[in-house]
Amino acid sequence: MDSTYRLDSKLDLSFERFVDEPKELIWRAWTHPQHLKPWFCPLPWTTIDCEIDLRPGGLFRTVMQSPEGQEFPNIGCYLEVVENERLVWTNALLPNFRPALPNKTGESVEFFFTASIELAVHGTGTRYTATVRHGDEASCKQHAAMGFEAGWGKALEQLVAYIKAGKMK
Amino acid sequence: MDSTYRLDSKLDLSFERFVDEPKELIWRAWTHPQHLKPWFCPLPWTTIDCEIDLRPGGLFRTVMQSPEGQEFPNIGCYLEVVENERLVWTNALLPNFRPALPNKTGESVEFFFTASIELAVHGTGTRYTATVRHGDEASCKQHAAMGFEAGWGKALEQLVAYIKAGKMK
Repeated sequence: MDSTYRLDSKLDLSFERFVDEPKELIWRAWTHPQHLKPWFCPLPWTTIDCEIDLRPGGLFRTVMQSPEGQEFPNIGCYLEVVENERLVWTNALLPNFRPALPNKTGESVEFFFTASIELAVHGTGTRYTATVRHGDEASCKQHAAMGFEAGWGKALEQLVAYIKAGKMK
Repeated sequence: MDSTYRLDSKLDLSFERFVDEPKELIWRAWTHPQHLKPWFCPLPWTTIDCEIDLRPGGLFRTVMQSPEGQEFPNIGCYLEVVENERLVWTNALLPNFRPALPNKTGESVEFFFTASIELAVHGTGTRYTATVRHGDEASCKQHAAMGFEAGWGKALEQLVAYIKAGKMK
């Protein structure tokens, strides 16, 4: 996947952060349910359930909970799994690559996107690039208006705090 | 991808054929435009253009032409590429895994599916398994009514005839 280049400014959202933690720990936090749940949702939202079948075609499922207690399931399918480097998944496919239905009512995100997390060594830390690709401008604008960068950025801060608290050991 | 098992009879269509040709030649016919175009559409339909970027996330594009001369483009994205064994692609994603738009008006197939071709050694030939997975029963029924098995079966016969005519050399 050409995820750090050939972005389409009308269809894609992307941001980059430099993190003073090794990419192996960030990868681990993204790929193990017990290490993902503590940071994946910006507080006061929480992630109350998570399933990960880490292979192309495998399930990536989370359940987010609003502060009021409402639950929002999200089901996706991994597309690329390159250990410590690149993780790509989409909610346009279900496990085993089955097409998902366009009407995603009840999920926290009601449009299709393909997301990637890319990790690269940078000094003593990691360059972290998050990208989401959409099928149309409306979905992209909706994702931007939901606060994609702020939300994923805050989740990353929570991830780093989780690592720094020594909880990955 | 668990394509030969865990099929859902309401959502998936699949058939198996035994072919007296080595799987390497069948793979080659599926993965090179000049070897795909001659057999890919059951005559009198033809395949007048084809692009193949053979990697997960890569483009699989064909243009079919009806006997009346009408053209039907099809754009898909490869998901799994296991040489001589398994080829998986979907029209629910565009290249680089971008979600496709649900409204596929103008393409020859106006619903989403994920297809796989699996090749296994069987005696001196090959066990050939073709599977298509859908997101809902309506799409599956529509694909069955279009003659999925007859169409793909006839294309396979054309493929075998193409090999036997010595045109892969």
